[in-house]
Amino acid sequence: MKLDKNIDILIVGLGLIGGSYAKGFRKKGYKVSAIDVNEQSIKFAIENGIIDKGSSKIDENLISSADLVIFALYPHVFLDWIKTNQHLFKQGAVITDVTGVKSCIVYEIQSVLRKDIEFVSAHPMAGKEVYGVENADDSIFKGANYIVVPTDTNTFNAIEMCKAVGETLGFARISSLPPKAHDEMIGFVSQLTHCIAICLMTCSKSEHLVDYTGDSFRDLTRIARINENMWSELFMLNKEALLSQMETFMSEFNSFYELLKNDDVENMKEKMKQSTARRALFDK
Amino acid sequence: MKLDKNIDILIVGLGLIGGSYAKGFRKKGYKVSAIDVNEQSIKFAIENGIIDKGSSKIDENLISSADLVIFALYPHVFLDWIKTNQHLFKQGAVITDVTGVKSCIVYEIQSVLRKDIEFVSAHPMAGKEVYGVENADDSIFKGANYIVVPTDTNTFNAIEMCKAVGETLGFARISSLPPKAHDEMIGFVSQLTHCIAICLMTCSKSEHLVDYTGDSFRDLTRIARINENMWSELFMLNKEALLSQMETFMSEFNSFYELLKNDDVENMKEKMKQSTARRALFDK
Repeated sequence: MKLDKNIDILIVGLGLIGGSYAKGFRKKGYKVSAIDVNEQSIKFAIENGIIDKGSSKIDENLISSADLVIFALYPHVFLDWIKTNQHLFKQGAVITDVTGVKSCIVYEIQSVLRKDIEFVSAHPMAGKEVYGVENADDSIFKGANYIVVPTDTNTFNAIEMCKAVGETLGFARISSLPPKAHDEMIGFVSQLTHCIAICLMTCSKSEHLVDYTGDSFRDLTRIARINENMWSELFMLNKEALLSQMETFMSEFNSFYELLKNDDVENMKEKMKQSTARRALFDK
Repeated sequence: MKLDKNIDILIVGLGLIGGSYAKGFRKKGYKVSAIDVNEQSIKFAIENGIIDKGSSKIDENLISSADLVIFALYPHVFLDWIKTNQHLFKQGAVITDVTGVKSCIVYEIQSVLRKDIEFVSAHPMAGKEVYGVENADDSIFKGANYIVVPTDTNTFNAIEMCKAVGETLGFARISSLPPKAHDEMIGFVSQLTHCIAICLMTCSKSEHLVDYTGDSFRDLTRIARINENMWSELFMLNKEALLSQMETFMSEFNSFYELLKNDDVENMKEKMKQSTARRALFDK
């Protein structure tokens, strides 16, 4: 399925991801408007051709003319926004999001939502260590994964439309996972890795690390530059899944520690062979 | 200090690092010969202009004419080589190495070495996930750190010559650390990060990771492709320092786990701010 070229797209929350969506859609010829509480963000986006129209207020016209609304807000803001403003949606509109955790938000949004509006959740696995629409860059989607996270109540057509969003923006792989499986996966590949990066930076007292580091340490700590408000919220919203992944990792790490401690070179080599074989699949 | 353009350089062990040294020196106009047990490596290097001369045997002429000898061998092979062949060194020659661990090897080499030969150890912090002289590439030194690891017995002139090797090859930062401090640092920035990468790949049972990963997981596991023979040897040779760094990391990681478990959002944010500030120093 392709997205109809004539639809009106509204982006709510014009930060790095919202802005990058806007850029990507505009390049493909879509009409894109945006709402963001920050007037500077809207001004910047209009002046730089990132959006067609925008408002820092709840603009009734923008909302009621949109066929597709994309929410790029913090999870708790997203829910409040829906409760307060959903009466303004165009009949039959489809809404989606970019939220990094799902179980905690998807069912609640669906349960409060007007019956003629459909919400299909999605997670674009792309980002940068900088923030704001000023850094918007749709090239971050190239080579990246886009996960559609439908529930049993979603319809085939709305799911296809949500996938078409990922295809239009140029993601490399579009896949689909239920909310619980998504959150476990994200707890592992994204949140656990951020916890590790943070702890690598906070466990050392050395002030001269930069003089001695190789690429390994740089790679493992790139994501230690982190927006503490967003990520602490994401961690808390996915707490059980993340704790479980942290436990699994600690257990594996502790086993490796014991192998070294006990001079068990053969089993250390086995682990290294296994990690090498599994990681090689990523570089095909 | 600059390396005298007229010296003869011999590289013993023509793999990825030895080959990259050879390439770098040749580009700067130095005469470079090499000894490697693998005849194919020597043949490849001569045919591709990576070295001037070479041999897969203990070639008396090559060894006795070298003013500077660089060892790029596994640690245990390095020590045996010195014991067996050091009578062939030119009087007053300086030798250095590229070994990733120091305390276990530097003092032993110095204690068995002829009194007219000086060994100054060094650690070029550069590499690739591929092996062999066929992949030699001196551009890996650009932007990288080069650590000279002298002992109390080393002379000023030989240390300066060893630093000049790093400068000639184009390393970004040349620093100096005693063996023990070097090994603690390496246990942290290099070996600990490799342990983490290995465990991230071995703790998951999912066969579909590649469909869901973002850049974070890719970055943290790049070095999980690992030469198990070399790295298990390096881990064992630096066992105490690495175990200690693993303990420090596990303790910090466990503290972060407790913060999340106890909903201590404020202290999680503090950790994130700290990691962000420290990591920002790397990107200046």
